[in-house]
Amino acid sequence: MHFEKICGIIPPVVTPLTNDLDFDKEAFNRLLEHVISGGVNGIFLLGSCGENASLTNDIRYQVITAAVEIVSKRIPIHINITSSSYKESLQMANYSYEKGADYVILAPPFYFLMNQAELITYVEMMADKVPLPLVLYNAPQYTKTGFEPAAVEKLLKHKNIAGMKDSSGNMLFLHELLGIRNNKNFSILIGPEMHLGEGVLNGCDGGINGGANLFPELFVKMYEAASKRDVEKMLQLQEWIRKIHTNIYQVIDSPARLIIGIKYALSLKGICSEQMAMPVYPDLTGDKKEIIKNFIKEYEQ
Amino acid sequence: MHFEKICGIIPPVVTPLTNDLDFDKEAFNRLLEHVISGGVNGIFLLGSCGENASLTNDIRYQVITAAVEIVSKRIPIHINITSSSYKESLQMANYSYEKGADYVILAPPFYFLMNQAELITYVEMMADKVPLPLVLYNAPQYTKTGFEPAAVEKLLKHKNIAGMKDSSGNMLFLHELLGIRNNKNFSILIGPEMHLGEGVLNGCDGGINGGANLFPELFVKMYEAASKRDVEKMLQLQEWIRKIHTNIYQVIDSPARLIIGIKYALSLKGICSEQMAMPVYPDLTGDKKEIIKNFIKEYEQ
Amino acid sequence: MHFEKICGIIPPVVTPLTNDLDFDKEAFNRLLEHVISGGVNGIFLLGSCGENASLTNDIRYQVITAAVEIVSKRIPIHINITSSSYKESLQMANYSYEKGADYVILAPPFYFLMNQAELITYVEMMADKVPLPLVLYNAPQYTKTGFEPAAVEKLLKHKNIAGMKDSSGNMLFLHELLGIRNNKNFSILIGPEMHLGEGVLNGCDGGINGGANLFPELFVKMYEAASKRDVEKMLQLQEWIRKIHTNIYQVIDSPARLIIGIKYALSLKGICSEQMAMPVYPDLTGDKKEIIKNFIKEYEQ
Amino acid sequence: MHFEKICGIIPPVVTPLTNDLDFDKEAFNRLLEHVISGGVNGIFLLGSCGENASLTNDIRYQVITAAVEIVSKRIPIHINITSSSYKESLQMANYSYEKGADYVILAPPFYFLMNQAELITYVEMMADKVPLPLVLYNAPQYTKTGFEPAAVEKLLKHKNIAGMKDSSGNMLFLHELLGIRNNKNFSILIGPEMHLGEGVLNGCDGGINGGANLFPELFVKMYEAASKRDVEKMLQLQEWIRKIHTNIYQVIDSPARLIIGIKYALSLKGICSEQMAMPVYPDLTGDKKEIIKNFIKEYEQ
Repeated sequence: MHFEKICGIIPPVVTPLTNDLDFDKEAFNRLLEHVISGGVNGIFLLGSCGENASLTNDIRYQVITAAVEIVSKRIPIHINITSSSYKESLQMANYSYEKGADYVILAPPFYFLMNQAELITYVEMMADKVPLPLVLYNAPQYTKTGFEPAAVEKLLKHKNIAGMKDSSGNMLFLHELLGIRNNKNFSILIGPEMHLGEGVLNGCDGGINGGANLFPELFVKMYEAASKRDVEKMLQLQEWIRKIHTNIYQVIDSPARLIIGIKYALSLKGICSEQMAMPVYPDLTGDKKEIIKNFIKEYEQ
Repeated sequence: MHFEKICGIIPPVVTPLTNDLDFDKEAFNRLLEHVISGGVNGIFLLGSCGENASLTNDIRYQVITAAVEIVSKRIPIHINITSSSYKESLQMANYSYEKGADYVILAPPFYFLMNQAELITYVEMMADKVPLPLVLYNAPQYTKTGFEPAAVEKLLKHKNIAGMKDSSGNMLFLHELLGIRNNKNFSILIGPEMHLGEGVLNGCDGGINGGANLFPELFVKMYEAASKRDVEKMLQLQEWIRKIHTNIYQVIDSPARLIIGIKYALSLKGICSEQMAMPVYPDLTGDKKEIIKNFIKEYEQ
Repeated sequence: MHFEKICGIIPPVVTPLTNDLDFDKEAFNRLLEHVISGGVNGIFLLGSCGENASLTNDIRYQVITAAVEIVSKRIPIHINITSSSYKESLQMANYSYEKGADYVILAPPFYFLMNQAELITYVEMMADKVPLPLVLYNAPQYTKTGFEPAAVEKLLKHKNIAGMKDSSGNMLFLHELLGIRNNKNFSILIGPEMHLGEGVLNGCDGGINGGANLFPELFVKMYEAASKRDVEKMLQLQEWIRKIHTNIYQVIDSPARLIIGIKYALSLKGICSEQMAMPVYPDLTGDKKEIIKNFIKEYEQ
Repeated sequence: MHFEKICGIIPPVVTPLTNDLDFDKEAFNRLLEHVISGGVNGIFLLGSCGENASLTNDIRYQVITAAVEIVSKRIPIHINITSSSYKESLQMANYSYEKGADYVILAPPFYFLMNQAELITYVEMMADKVPLPLVLYNAPQYTKTGFEPAAVEKLLKHKNIAGMKDSSGNMLFLHELLGIRNNKNFSILIGPEMHLGEGVLNGCDGGINGGANLFPELFVKMYEAASKRDVEKMLQLQEWIRKIHTNIYQVIDSPARLIIGIKYALSLKGICSEQMAMPVYPDLTGDKKEIIKNFIKEYEQ
């Protein structure tokens, strides 16, 4: 399977919902136009920020169909096919291919644990069968099972495996990955946005950063500054990324607070409602909302 | 909602599959007749042993329909409605009710983490909406989020919550639970079979034990011996339960080895194939199979 | 090395301190006479309850010397020689022998982690060198490194290793241990007091339970009831043990609350002061103290 | 208490030992002259690389005395006073002051766990009493209890607290720390050497990196390149740091392999013996040693 290096900022877009928990296609259209006009290099559907695990299959398929139609080949589309069920992952990969998506993304199944040998066999089997280039997704905070360096070393030899999104936040692992990757055609994309700058500086190819839902241009600029090794600029941008962390992601005490914060901030920008796919639900009281509102104002000045 | 104490042995039945990963209803019929003739007091569908998370929705619904038909009111049916999606859990609860099942079982969602306040809100919301008595399911090794004693203390006051299956293996938690439960109409069922005897002796109402797929009569006898406080008998039976652990569950090095061992042993008994729902798959080489075969022979003598 | 089965209740005695953090020998004398008159079968010095890790070497040696003198051969003395330093462990073992103690107890070192092969080598080396029978101490909550069943299987063949105190609270491990031990001369002593009854019923030889500092007779009775398989009696005593847990150990929110609770309760009984060896220190406000006071009154009626 | 910003590379020097586990002062002299001639800005005694937890008090005091004499005011001396015993920490702080050291370093006690409120109280109490500026040491992989951002936010206001060495490897925490520190006189020193470059680029003041025992000039150069924002140079040096990781630290499968690798490599350079303070001991077979030897040759060409 042929694929090129995956580069730049690829927002893991949220899934806009109505108050009845239905997919809100109009809001999704606004969101995609917002990020595309911010200069992003692709979109990543149905990731953790997209609340994949909380959606029904129906909504997942509506999201894919809508995205392909809206994006209309302007930028590549990556689709997370991770599921606790092997069959469902395969079905979603085939649907993604038929509709015209560009990449499928796969994390380890997230109910049963796997050892590394089982993980390698599983991923190779999937990579053999899916009709699109496969990107690995490392997020052990959600899936328990993560990829160890030796597993990646083996998997990057597979002709259909195009890269890895690392959301572990483990920067030692990332440096090990960069060493293992060497000159091979294997893209490394970094999840946690606080590490985007240093990741790209060290050789990562881009970022899949939740904050790019809100401020796509900020992350595009950071990617560019790091690519040009403009450290001064990077430090200015990093200051904003740190403020997003403090003022949007950390205002409430919930394991899902990053996504809750992003959806609420998007609602302030008139893009989509703050409705979460249950069971995760927002618990943003007035004073917490005020912190987010004030920050959005500060940023937009 | 009215419900009585849930007592005795309730096997968490496996989901028999064909080699094409389709549901094998004939084998399922053999399995249910096997456990019913072993004297069990209920069955638990689509739990971890039932590989719930690995199945498609289609198969889940086939399992429920088939079980209701086969059991035909002889014993109560418990259905695990746990899903990472709130909507899917509710749909399954409604389907279970319509088909004529007796209880629904709910563990915390297993992708995103929840804090205890969020967990309480979530479970109360579900308990308000499901049309059958709800049994809590504590299995943090799979769901990451578990129930803490204070959460159970709050939840057992809900009029639709009938009890808890505790599969954590944390016996201190179990003792705390017994203290919290006191005289309330809240059933406590123990998951890990090695603790069935001591659990019932201390006041648990029964067990949901994987090994009861294979040897239902053994677990029924243990339940009865513990109920009668026949310690001598308990120690004899415990010896067999320990041997099952060593000779069936621990022969391979896989996180899913318990289920792999049970399905392989069931295939030896001619009940169903050893086929696992992918992504979990058996890696039982000849010598490992020999250990299981020999033990089955020893037991059946 | 010759040793007999270690049986019964062996309190892990606290280390009474003055307000200046010096060893309080008079209080220690009162404590030892209190537990001996409660019928215990040995004492365990300098364990976690004895705040071993928080003491200076000077005080450790004072404790050993005082205990040997006070006990005066009435019951066996077990001495925890666990240290992050190999040399210090050996020195303490030799001192224990010279003074006339009966057993030394060893947990894995608690700063650096060890893999199981390293742990086996380390323990065998110690067992070769110490001049007293060695009892293993499993407490991974403190030492991070714990003993896995395969390591115990190897170590129990060593002629100087007399048994294990398991404080892990992992009852599955305990059952595995009982299977591995079989008929060998290897004593299994259980740490967490909530599991004393079921542990002894299943074949454990005794308990090293913090609560026996306070109520030695309660634990001695539980040991006897379980030995005689008097389940009715066990359940009554278990109710008291559960109340100690709730009313003494769980009144404050501190990782060291068990020891803090025991020392405060001992101060109410006039045995020793509530002074902890720093850095652990009590944060017992008035209302918390009231809960403990009330429970002591209830128990003593 | 007055203190200036702590800057540059401060090797956490190993503790050279004879085969009888005595302190080897001559080797220590060679080691200190080696790192000083490599241009380092201070030395850090008795840290994890110095096997502090495995040493006797005698040896700890010999190390301090020898270092002060050898260094003879050429560069500042930092002394780790971390102990599971409060009293021992204080004694070591006083000794350090009397002998003429410059800073004391304190991690949380490492046997009992602490909650954050207890940790703050403990550290403030120590900071009040120690006669030298105190640097916090965050290494939860060893001490279990770590510092959370809110604790640091409170502690950096203490007039005797001069900074933090962060060895957690958690780069998100480091970025949070940089945000909390802002313009205050609080030095941030990074432990894991793979992150030295990006840490300094983002505002860290220096590094306490094990590899600087071996190749002090390499780490000094990385510090300088990052200070000057010379990214090209940083990437070249990073390549060497990654090779040290792969060829010295990861050749064996032991939790202490980093220190084992450093001591063996130092023995190849004729600086000190490879003897570890027990219980950690090297398990370097011939082929593993060959990897290290070859790398040293490659580096020195």
